[in-house]
Amino acid sequence: MTPSFGFACTDANEPMKPWSFERREVRDDDVRIEITHCGVCHSDIHQARNDWGWATYPLVPGHEIVGRVVEVGSEVQGFQVGDKVGVGCMVDSCQECASCHEGLEQFCENGMTQTYADKDRRDGQPTYGGYSDQIIVRDKFVLRMPEGLDLAAAAPLLCAGITTYSPLRHVNLQKGQKLAVIGLGGLGHMGIKFGVAMGAEVTLFTRSKSKEAEAKALGVAHVVLSTDQAQMDAVANTFDYILDTVPVPHDINPYLSTLKRDGTHIIVGVIGPIDPPVSGAQLIIGRKSVIGSLIGGIAETQEMLDFCAEHGITCDIETIKIADINEAFERTVKGDVHYRFVIDMASLKDVRQAA
Amino acid sequence: MTPSFGFACTDANEPMKPWSFERREVRDDDVRIEITHCGVCHSDIHQARNDWGWATYPLVPGHEIVGRVVEVGSEVQGFQVGDKVGVGCMVDSCQECASCHEGLEQFCENGMTQTYADKDRRDGQPTYGGYSDQIIVRDKFVLRMPEGLDLAAAAPLLCAGITTYSPLRHVNLQKGQKLAVIGLGGLGHMGIKFGVAMGAEVTLFTRSKSKEAEAKALGVAHVVLSTDQAQMDAVANTFDYILDTVPVPHDINPYLSTLKRDGTHIIVGVIGPIDPPVSGAQLIIGRKSVIGSLIGGIAETQEMLDFCAEHGITCDIETIKIADINEAFERTVKGDVHYRFVIDMASLKDVRQAA
Repeated sequence: MTPSFGFACTDANEPMKPWSFERREVRDDDVRIEITHCGVCHSDIHQARNDWGWATYPLVPGHEIVGRVVEVGSEVQGFQVGDKVGVGCMVDSCQECASCHEGLEQFCENGMTQTYADKDRRDGQPTYGGYSDQIIVRDKFVLRMPEGLDLAAAAPLLCAGITTYSPLRHVNLQKGQKLAVIGLGGLGHMGIKFGVAMGAEVTLFTRSKSKEAEAKALGVAHVVLSTDQAQMDAVANTFDYILDTVPVPHDINPYLSTLKRDGTHIIVGVIGPIDPPVSGAQLIIGRKSVIGSLIGGIAETQEMLDFCAEHGITCDIETIKIADINEAFERTVKGDVHYRFVIDMASLKDVRQAA
Repeated sequence: MTPSFGFACTDANEPMKPWSFERREVRDDDVRIEITHCGVCHSDIHQARNDWGWATYPLVPGHEIVGRVVEVGSEVQGFQVGDKVGVGCMVDSCQECASCHEGLEQFCENGMTQTYADKDRRDGQPTYGGYSDQIIVRDKFVLRMPEGLDLAAAAPLLCAGITTYSPLRHVNLQKGQKLAVIGLGGLGHMGIKFGVAMGAEVTLFTRSKSKEAEAKALGVAHVVLSTDQAQMDAVANTFDYILDTVPVPHDINPYLSTLKRDGTHIIVGVIGPIDPPVSGAQLIIGRKSVIGSLIGGIAETQEMLDFCAEHGITCDIETIKIADINEAFERTVKGDVHYRFVIDMASLKDVRQAA
């Protein structure tokens, strides 16, 4: 086994604490990665607190992982010691179903293996995420971090990045089209950056007038205060696509009114009910649609990273020490972060030395 | 003016009664049609009873109209006296907006003119529908009824037909794909016929086991009892498309589970809230979508009629006399019709003679 050290919570009501644990030996097709940075995704908090009901403990969160290769299995061909790499929300899939064959491992029909709070599909042992000194991952699920991307600021690309990039590619967002993004958080600010880089005219919907300046700095053409009916009326029948990053139930009907005929409202944040309910008339009149999207496949994640390198895109982050993770969780829940916390994993050493 | 005779209701609580009224003179681009048959659409009842709140009285329903041309305006080129023709839900549109230019007059950005309970866009006079001896319609909104289609059985194609044909074309239903239809009524039975004719493997979702035999007679490959959880589980991740013809709020989440990845749930019946609300996870996991669809454009309606003639498709109907319209409304509300009432307009003469 491979002795590892990180932060875990032992049940839904406990804070994150230092924890020594073991990962598996490096298999023939595994890559062992020394983690330099790990992003703090809102879903880490949902899982730590078992908000979705399927958490397993001890739970080591973290699926926005970057670092360097420190060991490779005997059959690994694509990676060498020293390579800068990343790991996202998945560490394995069946590789045999239609979805896997199409490069859509996130929709693996036998269930993809999540980076943490899941079970390895070969030995059944728990998976542990990136709030840790190292991780061991099947080579097919390791991403290559392109030169020129700051590793810390690139870490959240592995979840927040691909979650917003994939649907914009899936709907085939074109230059000159009008994209609206709802919410200016970890996902929303990435959606804006991708939309701008793809040549779309991007509008931000926000409930907070104070976000106008920061949104404009990210490249949006317009900011619409969704609480102002006159502003909403002024953009009726305007957008080709809406990227809805809000992670809690909310009324999407007022936004549907701002879609053009044949427009599409993309849901990436709401896991629970889309409540209040969507009006049938909102869809029927204008032939509009609501579609969901879940991260992206491995090949598309690599494409996204390469796109980011080409366009100079990373996340706007606040770097923290891992000792401050519980405070970071609280601030994330309050939306008090611009726009993503990233843990500098070098800070684990201080914790270990103090222990 | 053109003296006309038909059936109307004078407010939301009144039954349908005989009514003499005037239609406009035949304009240069108008076609005057002697109506032989008119289908009874559920929306006629909604409008007669002002369920949607925008009815105007006296209200002459009917937008599944067939008949023969008896007069044409001086500029009309496409029609001659004696032609068999049809009129659907629209009688005019602006002809200038992007939607009209794309042949999607149903989404006219200046508002299409509905066949009844609307206002003519030139003279502002009320439009009156097909429960009547004749109708005067702008030539661009008159459909040619192909030879070989029984006029009575073809009448409901003008609404129930195009409402189900258009979305199947829009999503590009292909031979061999799996289509499920929810509901076996006026719309549902047409959705089945079109799906079968397009080469899809069609499944009917129904709450009533008694509908199995009739559905099989229409060409469905499978019938799934939606109230039987085991049957629903057996078709998880099965369908490319679901055509949902149910006209009242219902829970679509169990149906979304039966869509394949990238599958689409098409709403054509529910005008009000899709309640209980759709689960975000149902859309996100599998990248599924919910889309609405509204009748179809004029060119597509003609294409649908030609498709019906080619494939020998008409509606299954029960022909009634117009004197029985109030009873037909009651039976339609109860779902006691296979699958559409069509008024034989020759029966208007008996009413007029008795009056």
